[in-house]
Amino acid sequence: MQKRFLITPGPTPVPPEVLSALSEPVVHHRAPRFTEILKQVVAGLKYIYQTENDIIVLAASGTGAMESAVVNIVNPGDHVLVGSMGNFGERWKKLTATWGAEVTALDYEWGTKVVPVDIERALAADPAIKAVYVQFSETSTGVLNDIRAIGEIVARTPAILVVDAISGLGATDLKTDDWCVDICVAGSQKALMVPPGLAYAAVSEKAWAVVEQCTTPRFYYDYVTARKKMTGDAAQTPYTPAVSLMVAQNAAIDLIKEEGLENVFERHRILARAAKEGVKALGLELFGPEDPEANSVTAVRVPDGVDGGKIGKIARDKWGVWLAGGQGELKGKIFRFGHCGYFGHSDIIVGLCTVEMVLAELGYDVKFGASAAAAEKVFMQSTVQL
Amino acid sequence: MQKRFLITPGPTPVPPEVLSALSEPVVHHRAPRFTEILKQVVAGLKYIYQTENDIIVLAASGTGAMESAVVNIVNPGDHVLVGSMGNFGERWKKLTATWGAEVTALDYEWGTKVVPVDIERALAADPAIKAVYVQFSETSTGVLNDIRAIGEIVARTPAILVVDAISGLGATDLKTDDWCVDICVAGSQKALMVPPGLAYAAVSEKAWAVVEQCTTPRFYYDYVTARKKMTGDAAQTPYTPAVSLMVAQNAAIDLIKEEGLENVFERHRILARAAKEGVKALGLELFGPEDPEANSVTAVRVPDGVDGGKIGKIARDKWGVWLAGGQGELKGKIFRFGHCGYFGHSDIIVGLCTVEMVLAELGYDVKFGASAAAAEKVFMQSTVQL
Repeated sequence: MQKRFLITPGPTPVPPEVLSALSEPVVHHRAPRFTEILKQVVAGLKYIYQTENDIIVLAASGTGAMESAVVNIVNPGDHVLVGSMGNFGERWKKLTATWGAEVTALDYEWGTKVVPVDIERALAADPAIKAVYVQFSETSTGVLNDIRAIGEIVARTPAILVVDAISGLGATDLKTDDWCVDICVAGSQKALMVPPGLAYAAVSEKAWAVVEQCTTPRFYYDYVTARKKMTGDAAQTPYTPAVSLMVAQNAAIDLIKEEGLENVFERHRILARAAKEGVKALGLELFGPEDPEANSVTAVRVPDGVDGGKIGKIARDKWGVWLAGGQGELKGKIFRFGHCGYFGHSDIIVGLCTVEMVLAELGYDVKFGASAAAAEKVFMQSTVQL
Repeated sequence: MQKRFLITPGPTPVPPEVLSALSEPVVHHRAPRFTEILKQVVAGLKYIYQTENDIIVLAASGTGAMESAVVNIVNPGDHVLVGSMGNFGERWKKLTATWGAEVTALDYEWGTKVVPVDIERALAADPAIKAVYVQFSETSTGVLNDIRAIGEIVARTPAILVVDAISGLGATDLKTDDWCVDICVAGSQKALMVPPGLAYAAVSEKAWAVVEQCTTPRFYYDYVTARKKMTGDAAQTPYTPAVSLMVAQNAAIDLIKEEGLENVFERHRILARAAKEGVKALGLELFGPEDPEANSVTAVRVPDGVDGGKIGKIARDKWGVWLAGGQGELKGKIFRFGHCGYFGHSDIIVGLCTVEMVLAELGYDVKFGASAAAAEKVFMQSTVQL
């Protein structure tokens, strides 16, 4: 009977309108109706990506899209630069290495940002670098990189910029074209408000030139085949698409358009600020810099004396609330609230009050109600609906 | 994009399992499959009603079931006794008067209980009284009557006891048989966790004797026809039933059985206690006696200086949270939280924190977070899942 709350950075809650769309009868993927859906989804994604670039739609989760941005770019022996400041930066390193790249890694302490000038220096030091791989929002820490600055630097070189925007796109302003992001990958299950199973890549003209020269074998993930098939009046996907998820994505895009991208971003700013003020009011320490645009994930240090491994378990088993723990080297050291996508003031309140009860059970000296109070004060200043 | 919370005493939130059942393909009501569903629903309702009496299932809302308990009992000129302490007591008076009864009304101040000894005296004063009409939980005030005591009194007379348990059944322990309730009416949209549209009446042998003698014209609501049709291996309803709601009710009953009736009652006790402690922590005054078994509705006096008419409106329009206002003479004077049915700790927290923000906006001096703190302390002592 217990109600369940997904206060995690993916999968995220799915709006009822999207759940309804998901349960529509299955459309055949070679039907004209599916062509319409595909076109609408692509047009909607261009609005959210703020791009005129081509959008590739894949039946895959985020890691599939990340791998597609490697196999379409990297030939064995190619030089790539990875800026890593968390678990998903490590994934760029593994993916590029898997496909034979010579990887130069800029490793930053988890919880900090990639330093744009380091990218500039690394590119200057090795003009053979073909691509730069970074995260927009690093899901494992909640930290946001300055893609605008990195994009300006990379644009001045022959290298292309590949950005994992899986947890950031649709939550925080990301100007794919203005910021010169050449391949921008995303997934359906974060701020795009659809269950996992769809992944996207926005590919620039600069990237296409590299893709067309890339000889690494690929079939399912081949961007060239996908673009050809997805173009024109009878646009389709080359292989069977996740049709119901596409119908759902279309419904979710309608909701995002109705709310308006600026309002969506502002809602995320308010929710993230409320989450941060809430945890601080409990005397907890935020993990990473306090960035007013880092609005997908709030990462919190586990306080001294508390068994971090138990926080998520008690929240889930006792209160039906899914929080995220730390990944990799942060396991047991932080816990995370996700708030990208279909989140409102209620989720933040429930998440915070649940954390109060869980921490109290684990022996932390909780000032009950303090986090809700701090969050409410933030909510009351909102100019957008929450 | 705003999430909506129904923190009202009906309609109430519907569990996802029940929503799924509701969207199953429509079953034909003369199919053997529907007979199975009808039997299962009736058996499940007997478990919840704690009765061996016959259960009549109607495609109607609660008022339809109330009217059925009048037209099957009252001949014009019959004497009836109504104990009224709220808006739905007034409805018993109107319904019985509509059908020509000579009504003796015991009127109590709204927010107080029917006094059992008054019933005893009234029955002694007029041995012609054929039926006593009262509420279990008076939805308009949240006050619970002592049906056990009233049942004992009425059982010693030829009169039958008719109880409106619409907002109480399934939230608070109601022993239909042990407490000698002769007709007990309920609706699907409260603690039974289904959207509105189904209504039920549990009818005792003592009541059947009266029903069979009743000459008031009735067709759709006729219990005799309904019992005949609903009996036996090929049980059906006499007229088209609300089949999808029945399928949904069946799913909801499964959830109630899985949780167990005692745990359901305990969950409601904890949620109601948390709501009450929460509002008291804000310095607000509860409306009505603080009764540990009155667990369907928490009624709160609007504090001085606050425009009571605006509380529900702001909660709804600004925060997506539906609360209930006062009805009849209590309009603008109280507001109500409903928490009968598919409610958990999250709903109470969201309801309380929303009230904090709304009252602050309306000029009340709110101690932010105090209500959440008080509720959390209650939740943490729970021995059942919330």
